[in-house]
Amino acid sequence: MITGKTHYCDFDVRDYEIDSEGIVNNAIYLHYMEHARHTFCREVGLSYEQMRQQGITPVVAKLEIAYRTPLQSCDHVRCELTVERRGPRFIFHQTIHNISLGSIAAVATVTIACLVDGRLSRGDDLAQAFAPFLIN
Amino acid sequence: MITGKTHYCDFDVRDYEIDSEGIVNNAIYLHYMEHARHTFCREVGLSYEQMRQQGITPVVAKLEIAYRTPLQSCDHVRCELTVERRGPRFIFHQTIHNISLGSIAAVATVTIACLVDGRLSRGDDLAQAFAPFLIN
Amino acid sequence: MITGKTHYCDFDVRDYEIDSEGIVNNAIYLHYMEHARHTFCREVGLSYEQMRQQGITPVVAKLEIAYRTPLQSCDHVRCELTVERRGPRFIFHQTIHNISLGSIAAVATVTIACLVDGRLSRGDDLAQAFAPFLIN
Amino acid sequence: MITGKTHYCDFDVRDYEIDSEGIVNNAIYLHYMEHARHTFCREVGLSYEQMRQQGITPVVAKLEIAYRTPLQSCDHVRCELTVERRGPRFIFHQTIHNISLGSIAAVATVTIACLVDGRLSRGDDLAQAFAPFLIN
Repeated sequence: MITGKTHYCDFDVRDYEIDSEGIVNNAIYLHYMEHARHTFCREVGLSYEQMRQQGITPVVAKLEIAYRTPLQSCDHVRCELTVERRGPRFIFHQTIHNISLGSIAAVATVTIACLVDGRLSRGDDLAQAFAPFLIN
Repeated sequence: MITGKTHYCDFDVRDYEIDSEGIVNNAIYLHYMEHARHTFCREVGLSYEQMRQQGITPVVAKLEIAYRTPLQSCDHVRCELTVERRGPRFIFHQTIHNISLGSIAAVATVTIACLVDGRLSRGDDLAQAFAPFLIN
Repeated sequence: MITGKTHYCDFDVRDYEIDSEGIVNNAIYLHYMEHARHTFCREVGLSYEQMRQQGITPVVAKLEIAYRTPLQSCDHVRCELTVERRGPRFIFHQTIHNISLGSIAAVATVTIACLVDGRLSRGDDLAQAFAPFLIN
Repeated sequence: MITGKTHYCDFDVRDYEIDSEGIVNNAIYLHYMEHARHTFCREVGLSYEQMRQQGITPVVAKLEIAYRTPLQSCDHVRCELTVERRGPRFIFHQTIHNISLGSIAAVATVTIACLVDGRLSRGDDLAQAFAPFLIN
C-alpha cells in the first residue's frame, strides 16, 4: 500500500468554543474537521466556492469519532488528514492533535458523498482534484 | 431481549443552524443529540446541573452517526433515544426524525463515559438514575 | 402614536448554548433574536426562503443590546418583537423574556437594511409584507 | 486626551461560520470580539482562566455594533481593540477589519461589568491589569 500525502491545518481553540464543562464541546470537533477539509480542498485547488459554482456539493454521509483527551482554553490544535476513495465515496481519516499537550484529542473517519446538480455522482471531479493526495 | 423505554424530545430547526449549503450543518446534529440526552437526564431526575453538584461528569467517548436526509429550514424534529449499559459505559442509540417529511434525518450511537471527581468511574450513579430506561 | 402588533416566539434554552461561565453566551442572544425575526417573517407570509427566491436579502446593519439577567440552563424564553419603518430601514424592537424567572433577559434594537438583487433597496417589499405589524 | 495602546488579534474566517446568505452570520461577530477580548486579557497577564480562579467574572452589559461590509469565506480578519474605564465599567472599542479586502467589517462598543464572587464590583482588579492599555 502506498499512502497518500497528508494535509495539515493549525489553529487555536477559541474560548467561546468551551462549554459548561470547561472543555471544547464535542460538536465543535466536527467544525474543526470540516474546516480542515475546506483548507484541504483549497490546497488542491478546488475550493468549496468553486465547487458551488460547478454544482458540486460534498455531503457528510457518515462520521465516526473517538474523543481522547479533551481540548481546553488556548490549546493549539493541528488537524491532520489523509483521504481515500472507495467507489463513489471519499473517506477522510482525520486526527486532531493537541500540540500544546503533545497528545491526540480525537481520531475520526468521515465519509463524504458527492452530489452534482443535486444528484449522487461517481465523484470523478473530486477524485481528479484530490489525486495527489489519494491513498492507493 | 427486553428493550428499555424510549425518550422523546421535539423541537424545530432554527434558521441560523442552516449553513451555506442550505441545510442544517452536520455539527448541529451533535448539538441536537446532546440536547436530547440532557432532556432525558432531566426526565429521569438527574439533570446535568445536579450531576455537576455531585461531581459527576458524563463525557462523550465515541460517536458514530449516519446522515440520511438533510434537515432544512423550519423542519420539525423529533429526537428519540434508548440507552444501554456496557460495563462502565453507556451507549445511547439516537435517531433524529424529520417529522415534517416523515423521514429519518440521522441515526447515531453515542458512547458516554462517566467521570466522578475527574476520574473514570464505574457509572453506578448514572445506571441507578437510568434504570427504568436501560435495555437489558 | 398607534403601535403595531407584537410578534411572539417561545422556546427553551438548550444546554449547549451555555458557555464556560454557566450562562447563555452573549452571542447566542443574537441567534435567538434572528430566530424570532424569521418566525415573524413566516407569520406575515414572507419567509426567508421566499425572500431568497425573490432576490430579497435582509441584512443586519446595526444592533444595540442591553443584557439584563443572564439566561441559564432550561430557562423558558419568550422573544417579543415589534417593527418600525424608518425610510429604507426597518427597526426591530426585540425583548427577550425569561419566562421561568419572570424577568427580562435582554432588550435590543436591530436595524435591518434590505438588498434586492444585491443592491440596497427602499424596502417596499418588506414594508408591504410587514404592514399589519408596522408601528405608525 | 492620551489614548491607550491598541490590542490586535488576527485570524481567518472558517467556512462553517458562513450562514445561508453566504456571509458570516451576524452573531459570529460577537464571538470574534469575545475572542479578541480574551486574547487581550491574556496579553495583559490576566487570563479568563485566572479570573475564574480569583472569582472574577466579566459580563457583557451592553453592546452596540454597526455592520459595514460582510465577511466572507476565507477572509483574513484583524480584531483591534482599545479599552476605557467609566466608573465600574469598561468600554471596549472594537473594530473588525477585513484584511483581505482592506475594508472595515464592523465597529462595536462593548460595555463590560465585573462581578467578583457573584456581586457587581468596582472593577479595580481589571483596571489594574488593564492599566497599560487604559485610555485616559
